[in-house]
Amino acid sequence: MVAMIRPRRKLALARVYGLLEPGPVVLLATAHRGRSNVMAMSWLTMLEFEPPLVGCVVSGRNFSFELLRRSRECVIAIPEARLARQVAAAGNRSGRAGDKFAAVGLTPVPATKVGAPLVGECAANLECRVADTRMVNRYNFFVLEVVAAWIDPRVREPRTLHHRGRGRFMVAGPTVALPSRMR
Amino acid sequence: MVAMIRPRRKLALARVYGLLEPGPVVLLATAHRGRSNVMAMSWLTMLEFEPPLVGCVVSGRNFSFELLRRSRECVIAIPEARLARQVAAAGNRSGRAGDKFAAVGLTPVPATKVGAPLVGECAANLECRVADTRMVNRYNFFVLEVVAAWIDPRVREPRTLHHRGRGRFMVAGPTVALPSRMR
Repeated sequence: MVAMIRPRRKLALARVYGLLEPGPVVLLATAHRGRSNVMAMSWLTMLEFEPPLVGCVVSGRNFSFELLRRSRECVIAIPEARLARQVAAAGNRSGRAGDKFAAVGLTPVPATKVGAPLVGECAANLECRVADTRMVNRYNFFVLEVVAAWIDPRVREPRTLHHRGRGRFMVAGPTVALPSRMR
Repeated sequence: MVAMIRPRRKLALARVYGLLEPGPVVLLATAHRGRSNVMAMSWLTMLEFEPPLVGCVVSGRNFSFELLRRSRECVIAIPEARLARQVAAAGNRSGRAGDKFAAVGLTPVPATKVGAPLVGECAANLECRVADTRMVNRYNFFVLEVVAAWIDPRVREPRTLHHRGRGRFMVAGPTVALPSRMR
C-alpha cells in the first residue's frame, strides 16, 4: 500500500496526553542546518498535561541526538500500523549517511513553529521545543514542550504500534470505556 | 469473573524493557510503616536496559507519593484486560482513607527484595528501588531500578490496557513481527 499524506487539523494542547499516554511507537523528526532525520522511538512519557511536557530518551549513538541537541526542536509523529514497514526501516538505519525520509519512504512537511518537519503520513504530529536538558548527560533524557499539535481529523482512535522488543509490535486493539476519574 | 492469583517465574532483568516499552497502564504498589497502597499509573518510560531503569511520574497529590518517597521502594505490576475494573477503581479512589487493595479487590503478595507487595492477580510484577530523586521536585519524576522481575509463565504477550484518557482504555491487539534491529 502506498502511504498517503494525511489531512490535518489543530488539536488543543490540553488533549495531547491522550495521544501519547497509550504508549505508541513514535517517529522523532529533527532538522538542523540543512540536515534532517527521522528515527523510531519508544522510550517516552508525559510529564505534564498543560502546557504538555514530554520526556524522551534519545541515545547519544543516534544521529538524531546531535540534531536535537543542536536545534533544540523536534516533531513527535505518531504512525499507525499501516506504516509498520516504514517505522521498522526508520529504526534499522542511521540517518548519518543520507536522507532517511527518502530512504524509508516518508514525507517531510513544513511545521509551523519549529524547523523540524512533520511526517506527512502520520495520524498525529506534535511540534516540540526542548525545555530542559539537565537529564541529558546522565540519562539521554530530554524534556520537550509541545507547542503545536496536529491530527488527521478522520482518525478518532489511531491504530498505533507498540514495541514489545526485537521487532515485535503489538497493534492497538479495541477501546473500552470504564467509569473513571483518571484525567 | 473472579480474579486469580497468578503463578510466577523469575524474568531476566535484561528482558524487563519488553514489558514496559509497549506502554501499558500499570499498578504502582507501595508500603511504608504498616500502610500500603496501590494506584494506576500511565506516565512511565524505560530509561536504561540493564540494570533496568524506569522513570515514572507520581503526583504529589497521591498518597502513593508519600509512601514511595519515604520507603524508596515499590512494585510496578502489569495488569491484563481482565482486571480493567480493578484498574479503574484503583485510579478512582485515594488510598489515604483505608486499605485500597481490599477496596478494589486485589491481593498483596510478599515480594523478595522490597517491602512493597506484588499484586497477585497481575501478569507481571517488577520489584523496584528508587535510584534517583533529583527530578522529583520539578516533575514528580522518580527514577527506579528494577531489582527483581516476575511473570506468569503462561503469558507470552499480555493483553494489556493502554489509557487513552478519561477512562477510555485501548486493549492490546495482535502482535506482528517485522525485520528490525531495534533491541
